[in-house]
Formats: sequence, C-alpha cells, structure tokens
Amino acid sequence: MDIYISKVSERLNLEKEVIKNAIDRKVISLCKYKNKRYIIFKKKVRHIERGTVLFLNKEMDVVMGYPKIRRALVLDPTVKKYFIDKVVVEEKLNGYNVRVVYIEDEVLAITRGGRICPFTTKKVLKLLNTDILKDHPEVMLCGEMIGLNNPYVSHYYPEVDMKIYEDENVVIKENLGLYIFDVKDREKNTPLSVEDRNRLLEEYNVPYVKPLGVFKKEDVEEIKNIVLKLNSEGREGIVLKDPNMMVDPIKYTTHYTHCQDLSVAFRYTFDLGIHFMFSRLIREGYQSYEFNEGKEELERRAVSIGKSIVYPMVESIREVSRGKLITEDFELYFESEEDTEEFFKYLREVHISYVVKEREVLKNGICRVVIGKVYPSTKDKIKSYLDGSLW
Amino acid sequence: MDIYISKVSERLNLEKEVIKNAIDRKVISLCKYKNKRYIIFKKKVRHIERGTVLFLNKEMDVVMGYPKIRRALVLDPTVKKYFIDKVVVEEKLNGYNVRVVYIEDEVLAITRGGRICPFTTKKVLKLLNTDILKDHPEVMLCGEMIGLNNPYVSHYYPEVDMKIYEDENVVIKENLGLYIFDVKDREKNTPLSVEDRNRLLEEYNVPYVKPLGVFKKEDVEEIKNIVLKLNSEGREGIVLKDPNMMVDPIKYTTHYTHCQDLSVAFRYTFDLGIHFMFSRLIREGYQSYEFNEGKEELERRAVSIGKSIVYPMVESIREVSRGKLITEDFELYFESEEDTEEFFKYLREVHISYVVKEREVLKNGICRVVIGKVYPSTKDKIKSYLDGSLW
Repeated sequence: MDIYISKVSERLNLEKEVIKNAIDRKVISLCKYKNKRYIIFKKKVRHIERGTVLFLNKEMDVVMGYPKIRRALVLDPTVKKYFIDKVVVEEKLNGYNVRVVYIEDEVLAITRGGRICPFTTKKVLKLLNTDILKDHPEVMLCGEMIGLNNPYVSHYYPEVDMKIYEDENVVIKENLGLYIFDVKDREKNTPLSVEDRNRLLEEYNVPYVKPLGVFKKEDVEEIKNIVLKLNSEGREGIVLKDPNMMVDPIKYTTHYTHCQDLSVAFRYTFDLGIHFMFSRLIREGYQSYEFNEGKEELERRAVSIGKSIVYPMVESIREVSRGKLITEDFELYFESEEDTEEFFKYLREVHISYVVKEREVLKNGICRVVIGKVYPSTKDKIKSYLDGSLW
Repeated sequence: MDIYISKVSERLNLEKEVIKNAIDRKVISLCKYKNKRYIIFKKKVRHIERGTVLFLNKEMDVVMGYPKIRRALVLDPTVKKYFIDKVVVEEKLNGYNVRVVYIEDEVLAITRGGRICPFTTKKVLKLLNTDILKDHPEVMLCGEMIGLNNPYVSHYYPEVDMKIYEDENVVIKENLGLYIFDVKDREKNTPLSVEDRNRLLEEYNVPYVKPLGVFKKEDVEEIKNIVLKLNSEGREGIVLKDPNMMVDPIKYTTHYTHCQDLSVAFRYTFDLGIHFMFSRLIREGYQSYEFNEGKEELERRAVSIGKSIVYPMVESIREVSRGKLITEDFELYFESEEDTEEFFKYLREVHISYVVKEREVLKNGICRVVIGKVYPSTKDKIKSYLDGSLW
C-alpha cells in the first residue's frame, strides 16, 4: 500500500503523514470489487468526507463521501435563520444512501460507508437509465434506495412494488426503488442546483425525490403542515434545500419515524446504542413543543412513544427466553444463484453476521432469500440477565 | 500533602506510587470540615471503595466507602442462584446514603461521595441517639436520609413528618428522617449480621429500615408480591440480604420508581445522562417480562413510561422558552442563620451551583430556605436548539 501513499496524498491534497497515520489507525482501508481495488475513508479526515472512495486505477478516480445532513430540532426559527430567502422542501425517504457512479466503463453503487455493494449495483442497473452516467461520467447520482426488499433498511413503500414472478398460485412482488436527490460532481462534491438537477434527471427519465414545494423561508407554517401530512401518511420527513444549493441541506423528521426508530432500537436493545434512542426522544420533545400540543395530543404522543419502547423490548426478552435468536430479517431477490453467493461473500467481507433463514429458486430462475442479521449483544446480554447476572 | 503519602500508604495498604498517581489524577482530594482535615477517594482505587475517608489526625481514622449494591434485573432465577439458603428482604428507601461515625469525640455524617455534610451532620444529632457511637466508636451507622426537606433527594415519606413550627395561622412540618440499614466496622467495612444489627439498634432505640420478611431463597413468588405491594404504595423497592451478610446485598426496584426516575431524567434532559434513563427503561422491560404481563398491564406500563418521558421534557422546553431557569428545588430548615450560611459555603465548596429562591426566619428562629439547584447543560442546550442551532 505504501507505494500509493504519495499518489493518494497528491490526489486528495492530504499530507503523506496524515494518510500514513490514517492507515495505521485503520481509518483508511483497502477493498476490492471484482477486478477493482479501492481505498475507503471510514471516518472524515480533514476535508475528506467519511465514505470517500479512491480507486487504485490509472486515473485514481475519486468519489467523495456523502456529507452528514444536519437536523433542525425546531423548524421555527431554524429555517428563518439558516436559509437565504427561499427553501425547497423535498421528501426524505427512509432507505439507505447510495452514490451511483461510472468508473472505467462500469456503473457502480456505493453505500454511505464507501463500499461497492454488489446487491445494490445490480439493482441500479435495472432501476436506472445509466446513459446519464455514460454521458456525464464526472457526476455521481446520490439517492435513496428504498423498499422492503433490500439488505439494509427494510421499509415498505407502496410506490415501488414491481411484479417479478407469477404463476397460477402466486404473484411475487419485489418492493424496491431508487430515488435520486442530488447530482454532484463526484470529485468536488459540488451539487447541481435543484432546477438543473431536475432538468437533467428528467431528460434521462431518472426517478427523483418528490418536490413538495418551494417556499419563502418565512413560511414555516406551510412547512409544518407538510410535516403533519407526511406523518399521517407514515412517511419519514423532509429535507430542506436552498434552490441553488448555496447552503447545506438540513432535515426534519416525523413523529411516525421517531416511533419506528424507537421500536427498532428497543427490539435490538443492546446493539443499537443508547445515543440512537436518546436522540429520537429529544426530537419528540421539541416537536411536541413546536406544534404547540394540547393535553390530548401530548398524551397521544406519550402513549405511542411508551409503546414503541416497551412492546419491542419485552418481545425481545420473551423471544430470547424461548431460545429464539434475535435477528432482523430481510427478504431479497437475486437474478441467479451466483449473484446470491456473491452477495453472501460481500456480507462476510464487511463483517455483517447473518443467518440464511429461507432460500428457494423460483421457476423463472430468480432466487428468493431471507437473511437474518444477527444482533449479538442483544442476544447475549438478554440471556445473561435472564440467567441471573447482576447489573 | 506529600508528607502524608507514606502514612496513608501504610494505613490503607496501598503502594505509595498508587497514592501519588491518584493525587495527580485528582482521584484523591483534600477536604476540610471545621478543624478536621481529611482526604477522600472519589473513585474506587484497588480495594479502597469510592467515598472512603481518611482523617489527617493522629489516629488517621478511616471510614470506608459504602460499596455499590448490584441489581437483579429478574428476581427469578437471580435470587435462587445468588443466595445461600435464606434471604432477608428489607425496604429500599429513596433518599441519600449517609454514614454516621464518631471521630475525635464528634458525630459526623458523611455522604456517599465522602464529604462531611454540615446539613446532614446537624440533623443526625437530632434524629439519632448518638450514645450508640460513643459506646461503639469503631462502627459506622449506614443509613438512608429520606424526606422532602433535604438538599439531595427530595421525596415525601409520610412517616417522617415532624412539626417544627406552629402559630395561629400556620403549622410547619419538616419531612426528614434517617433509617439505618447497616452497622459496619468503619475501617474494615465488615457488617453485623441482620440479627445483631437489629439487637444493637433496638438497644439504643435507633430507627432502622423495615424488615419485610425472611424467606427461603426458593420463595421468589413471595418476594415478587412484596414488590407489587410496594409499587402500589409508591415506594422504591427492596434490598435482599443474607441473614449473616455472607454475600453482598442486592437490590430490585419498582415500576413506580423507574417512572419517577425517568421524569427526573427528562426534566433535566441534558444533565442527568443518557445511561441513567437507558438503565431505567431496561429495568422496565425485564420487570414486565418477569411479572408475566398481559396485554392490558403491558399497555398500562407503556403509557406510564411514555408520560414519564414526554411530559417533563416538553415542560422543560416550554419553561426555557418562557425564559425560566430550570432548577430542582429543595426546601430546607436550619436552626440558625449561621447554619444556613455554613451550608451555602459547603455547596460552593462541592461545586453545586444553586440559587436561593426563598429565605425567611420563622418566629422561633428557624430558618426556612428554598434553594434551586441549577442544571446548566439543560438550560443552555434547550435554549440553543430553540434558537435554531442544528443537531
């Protein structure tokens, strides 16, 4: 790897010492996807975002990481203070962040952390018109992969149901879609304006996130109404953008999503981390305050939070007490057995421990697989306390 | 301080290096109470418990720290595994831990952390027959100071109301009491058996914690019934002991207390720490599981947890938005203005920031004071997010 240090240093404008140090401390790691070798940044180092990828090819192609989007705890006055004049409101989807790029004549899908994911890469080829990248190889399409049938964030979206199999007894639908929210220069991380992004994506008929409106930054009440509507529809929240992307986007999420997150956090009690749950509870406090809730609304909120915490936690304890393994299950569809195996190999490489719960080949050759992601701390700690360990 | 190092080292059987290191790292600190100088251990160092006090007098008197009591998350099988044959169940009171000792002809009350508290010391002289310590100066009386009117843990206990003032218009009661739960050798930390403790305390008519029963360790159902009864009465929980104190005591708390704790944690949202709240939620999960709750009981538990989280958090945000200072208020009674000032000086010494909210002298000379303990992070962070800071 040493032979690359000066090249990487020059390419990313980072001192050699910084790179050496990052390698020693395992902040930079070396990965491989088919015949492509690349390094990824596992944390933000100076100006290089977490998830940045540098390919060890002749051009030393760079794909910058997708930066963290900061959050408003109250829309008013945050929106008024933060934005310049106008605000574009877009829907925030609840899936996983993907950057789609074109490197050495190949379309690749990179996860937030910087891995080329074989599952996502293959799906992207089917979900997108990739001519856009062939014509504009300098851009990355940043988007959200959503739906039930992916291996990371499984959440049903009715708009992405696709029939993939049918016989006299059964119709099978894959629930999966990709919506682009940013088009950026993949080396400089500079985004297109909202208008330019829309124009380009429409030209190639690439699906992008729903624009929910453009407002004067003073019109916070209208933005609040959008949040209420999304909440009632069980949607995640909004991302607020400057029309010209002059300031970074910020985000705001619904009560529905906070409760969903809490349920997940308390099902995998000892794995998901207490900061995850604490932050959701804090968001609820500010939201209730900002939406000026009366006695009844506040009580309804308290009840749904309490249930989101207690029900999944008690259910997990009960499952462990019955000897069940606590897993998060994902139902996935692959084109072939080979693709399935390739993806299992990838999971082992990224150290995700999983069990295969179901596996079948449909008559049309599609492989249906259910994997269970294992939460080891939850399993071990719950069991240990049930067996009489002291806290 | 250096001149004391070898003496302290010898007295506590700790290497000089360890003591020097502990001083450098501020684990040991030097304090003063009137003409008495003493050092305290702010953390457990080797075999020396947190809160251990060593007086810098001729005898170098030592008062060992009160060890942490571990917790059962489920009573069954923990009790059966942990105890030898019998279990003494005592009520766990919700106040603050005090060690009362007799050093150089003076009765002193030491807090869990190792400070001689002037407030507590003076109250103890009125609440206890201190002859017990004069006759047995080698022991420490370990107990819980409870009631509304103390500066640390304010919780009403009907059994400790005392009339301290009366005129034609008003009757003032001080709600404060001390119940001893352990009698120990103050240097060795060895406890008396439950029977010997009771005999000694009864001889001097010293109040001690209510024994709730002695059971075979297999009789967990009876212990569970005690927990249910205490919960319905709004009491904190139980401490389980071996009759001869051959194994360390363990504790278990009620749903009522978990919810109370959550309310406090979320009122002082950013000060009390997320580990505090997480642990209470976990306890609720195991309790619901162990008490085999049906749909309705589980729902009731979820609702009370949700309310304990949301109501105080939203109330704090509302208060800050109205410009109010978030404080925890304590109403205290002192014998004299001098005692009051001495206690204020003590609060500054231990770096507790507070405001005086009310102060009056009753006709009989007793000083009534309301102090508000300030929670600085809660105030600052809530305000900052309300002003539009991003998370």
